[in-house]
Amino acid sequence: MITLGIDPGTAICGFGVVELRGGSVRLVDAGCIRTPPELGDAERLQQLHAALRSIVAAHRPGRIGIERLFFQRNVQTAMAVGQARGIALLAAAEAQVPIDEPTPNEVKQTVCGNGSADKSQVAAMVERLLGVSLTGVADDATDALAIAIGCAYRAAAEPRAVVG
Amino acid sequence: MITLGIDPGTAICGFGVVELRGGSVRLVDAGCIRTPPELGDAERLQQLHAALRSIVAAHRPGRIGIERLFFQRNVQTAMAVGQARGIALLAAAEAQVPIDEPTPNEVKQTVCGNGSADKSQVAAMVERLLGVSLTGVADDATDALAIAIGCAYRAAAEPRAVVG
Repeated sequence: MITLGIDPGTAICGFGVVELRGGSVRLVDAGCIRTPPELGDAERLQQLHAALRSIVAAHRPGRIGIERLFFQRNVQTAMAVGQARGIALLAAAEAQVPIDEPTPNEVKQTVCGNGSADKSQVAAMVERLLGVSLTGVADDATDALAIAIGCAYRAAAEPRAVVG
Repeated sequence: MITLGIDPGTAICGFGVVELRGGSVRLVDAGCIRTPPELGDAERLQQLHAALRSIVAAHRPGRIGIERLFFQRNVQTAMAVGQARGIALLAAAEAQVPIDEPTPNEVKQTVCGNGSADKSQVAAMVERLLGVSLTGVADDATDALAIAIGCAYRAAAEPRAVVG
């Protein structure tokens, strides 16, 4: 099964695509969607929406993971992330793809076996599981890969999930 | 000019449509978009998106006001409102309608001449300006009408605005 992970943001939105097959994951795609700061929020969200739709259309994921964020620095940050998150949820609903909304701790727990793993531990485990180096890859893309891997394993662990 | 005001929310999203002509406003439409609580966030946001698009298509506003919210009760509320706000911004961008994002205080200042007016004062002034009774109308729809009226007057006050 192909899983798309999304780390929502308006300025930078990370995405990662992995395939889970025979219990191991392989890297399919990863990167960041960046929207021009000179545009207003609405146009940036429109660009984000178009980019996410094209990623979904290109990879046809069987599941989309969109991190559920609880601990933002402040209410304004939460509002801004919420706007981008709304767009990601919409893109998933439009594609009629099942959505998983793990918390950051759930992602860390699934990927590292430790819900309080730090960023570098998560990145190291993502590299090891995918068998690739992520040196030079943006943090947001690495985070999105961790979300994708976490959601792939979570789906595989579901009693009735059929995983290719 | 027709102005659409939106009070964003996922469970209940208020909308109000007014026309400013010759310095006075008249009521065109108002109501609430409600999405089924039994659905997931993504499907609710998809329904909200479709409903906002049809309201924009029906009324063809020259301006859309979407309240900019700073003071949410907590980060989780801000995230939820942000998701709905992202959908409203997207719908406006898709229709290529200019957007105004006033704060609640700016709306109160424009509608009541007092940025710290309370809810009942705002509702009374909306009734007086539109010449209608809003008894029985949901708070979210009344709030959206205040946003629409505030944005209509703000647009009229802009140096180069042409108001019909």
